[in-house]
Amino acid sequence: MTDELTLDPAVAQTTQVINLVINTWKAQSNVVTAFFNKYDDAVYLNEVAPGRNRAVYLLGHLVAASDSLLPLFGLGDRTFPKLERLFTTNPDLTFDTIPTVAELKQNWETVNIALTAHFEQMQPEEWLDKHTKVSDEDFALEPHRNKLNVLISRTNHISYHAGQLALMPIRR
Amino acid sequence: MTDELTLDPAVAQTTQVINLVINTWKAQSNVVTAFFNKYDDAVYLNEVAPGRNRAVYLLGHLVAASDSLLPLFGLGDRTFPKLERLFTTNPDLTFDTIPTVAELKQNWETVNIALTAHFEQMQPEEWLDKHTKVSDEDFALEPHRNKLNVLISRTNHISYHAGQLALMPIRR
Repeated sequence: MTDELTLDPAVAQTTQVINLVINTWKAQSNVVTAFFNKYDDAVYLNEVAPGRNRAVYLLGHLVAASDSLLPLFGLGDRTFPKLERLFTTNPDLTFDTIPTVAELKQNWETVNIALTAHFEQMQPEEWLDKHTKVSDEDFALEPHRNKLNVLISRTNHISYHAGQLALMPIRR
Repeated sequence: MTDELTLDPAVAQTTQVINLVINTWKAQSNVVTAFFNKYDDAVYLNEVAPGRNRAVYLLGHLVAASDSLLPLFGLGDRTFPKLERLFTTNPDLTFDTIPTVAELKQNWETVNIALTAHFEQMQPEEWLDKHTKVSDEDFALEPHRNKLNVLISRTNHISYHAGQLALMPIRR
């Protein structure tokens, strides 16, 4: 999605706007990456606030959320399907054993590399087409339920949890 | 920015994508509105986490941030210029006296109504034009520094603080 050299200026505009959205997603994902590269892994076993999620849980939650874009955009299966149960459908502290911070950081990188490669290939028509969880009938009535809108929402979801991570007391 | 009935389908696409961005901004602003309508005003005098900003400070901070879009987009002066010093350039607890939660909620509504009215009038060319803090020279080199990109960033900024507000312990 980086080629803005088209004949129709309006198509170039659409491409430009879609690129803004993709770049914001990348930037917010990078905020999370930078946060988890800042301290020793043990630090992320702390809660972000008293009685709230641990940072490691939020990392797993964000990996699972981004990973879910693959099936949602019809790009393939989840890369790490086990994370959904651990970090999406169940709250923190449900399971005694979860992946390590190091594993989750690796998963986060893997998912982001895969998504970035896909996003760079996707054309405006694909971005504005329905995602896989909306029916043809519903999409006809609600054309905003497209992939681009999902990416905008998911980017805000990343920012939402990035704000929470920033509150974590650091005791090194 | 709601009229998608144009002759050129590509222009309609650009308009559609811009509307997605505007609607996400509205939705995230509404999350904040709903949060501050949920409890008694006194609740928002609490910190969102130990030693962190009070919810009332974050509300003032978000009002000031959204209000700053008026001059940044060349739409006029700030409506509440005093809030910048209280909630942007200085941290929480700098001043003994700040506006009440009720006042800030009213300011938040006023700013959002004004911005919404402006956004509905703005054409795609305006959204993709530079904001007022970038020079012509810089904009020629960095065409992504447009108003739409600012709105995308500010929407994520709202989500970032909305995530923090959600952590506030509620003691009613």
